[in-house]
Amino acid sequence: MSSEEHIFRRFDQELADLNGIVLRMGGLVEDQIAKAMHALREADSEIARNVVTRDHVVNFLDVQADEQIVNLLALRQPVGRDLRMILSLGKTVTDLERIGDEAERIARMTLDIHGSDNPPPDPLLLSDAFRMSRLATRMLHDVLDALARLDVDKAIQVARGDIELDSEFQAALRRLSTYIMQDARNVGHIINVTFIVKSLERIGDHSKNIAEYVVFLVKGKDVRHISPESIDPEELNR
Amino acid sequence: MSSEEHIFRRFDQELADLNGIVLRMGGLVEDQIAKAMHALREADSEIARNVVTRDHVVNFLDVQADEQIVNLLALRQPVGRDLRMILSLGKTVTDLERIGDEAERIARMTLDIHGSDNPPPDPLLLSDAFRMSRLATRMLHDVLDALARLDVDKAIQVARGDIELDSEFQAALRRLSTYIMQDARNVGHIINVTFIVKSLERIGDHSKNIAEYVVFLVKGKDVRHISPESIDPEELNR
Repeated sequence: MSSEEHIFRRFDQELADLNGIVLRMGGLVEDQIAKAMHALREADSEIARNVVTRDHVVNFLDVQADEQIVNLLALRQPVGRDLRMILSLGKTVTDLERIGDEAERIARMTLDIHGSDNPPPDPLLLSDAFRMSRLATRMLHDVLDALARLDVDKAIQVARGDIELDSEFQAALRRLSTYIMQDARNVGHIINVTFIVKSLERIGDHSKNIAEYVVFLVKGKDVRHISPESIDPEELNR
Repeated sequence: MSSEEHIFRRFDQELADLNGIVLRMGGLVEDQIAKAMHALREADSEIARNVVTRDHVVNFLDVQADEQIVNLLALRQPVGRDLRMILSLGKTVTDLERIGDEAERIARMTLDIHGSDNPPPDPLLLSDAFRMSRLATRMLHDVLDALARLDVDKAIQVARGDIELDSEFQAALRRLSTYIMQDARNVGHIINVTFIVKSLERIGDHSKNIAEYVVFLVKGKDVRHISPESIDPEELNR
């Protein structure tokens, strides 16, 4: 094997390692959301506390991925698709870390809900959260799959799915307002549940971001935000 | 001038351009927050709508910065501090873009609060939001200053300031719960104000993130999260 081939092989191996860290991080945050929602459903404070503790592992993988990225860029100086791959994985890591933060927030709200001296919340109050968590979890699962297989069509499907989650979120807020008006003593629970559905909506946003990186990675085109052509340059100076 | 010197100059110029985009984006999101809070205070729906529209400009700068980053990495293949600078600016851009999203959210809540048929909210209900926005805006301003001057001490100060903002946020939530219990008809306004204080808390988090990138950039050390040494490797497999 020539020394050039050797370097290429090593680069591929390091890129595969980075990919491995990212997918492992993805699996971990999926599990964090599942556990946080399970703790909410079963009023299991111990599991909720485990989710809070385990967020450190997500953060550790985040730091590890970033170190690998710095090394890959500095030592291998990739260009083209390899460079896009590394940058997309770097952005993905940031969103996964924040999904992990949202799972931790859900677990903390769960501790508040089930740890207080208040009577447990009416299950009806939580039903929107469970419906939204099914949607958000599916988006995250599908986008990790799209990332692993570089499947642009699936990524676009995920990005579109965010519309459904957003409308569920708005409907949940309307229902939560109605509950408060019916019985203002529920207010503590309702503020916590409001933050839980907000976290689930954010998990959808982060999954959508990752979907857009997959498209960028494969197509080399930045599809975030609106198309720059439609920007009025005058607006920049306003 | 030798061709090597020429390349170095061009690199410095491109890096300065990237820095310029980032600081411009920072100034723009500062202004977006100020305008959103002004619209809330003065019940000015037109200004709130302008904030929503102008978020496109923030997104445009985000895409522009990312393109510059891809070019710098691919064409100049930087290492060491230059590489850290580019990666830190890349992360900063992501946080600034999300601060912009929070400003847009505040503007949308403002439209909801002042656009509804409900009577305007009690000014007391908004006082926490204004206090928090002063803290969050100062954090953002200081961290942009720390970034522009690569001032690590100032960056660390900003990161510490986030503790104060978080405790203001918790106090605001307690007061908002009390308001609901006093008069459940306020519930629509209160949910909107809850999301506004949440957005302000997030702006603080993003400013803290940027502070940590400034430290990484100057010191070459990743200070996010806990120290990896204190992680139990067993935890990774749980």
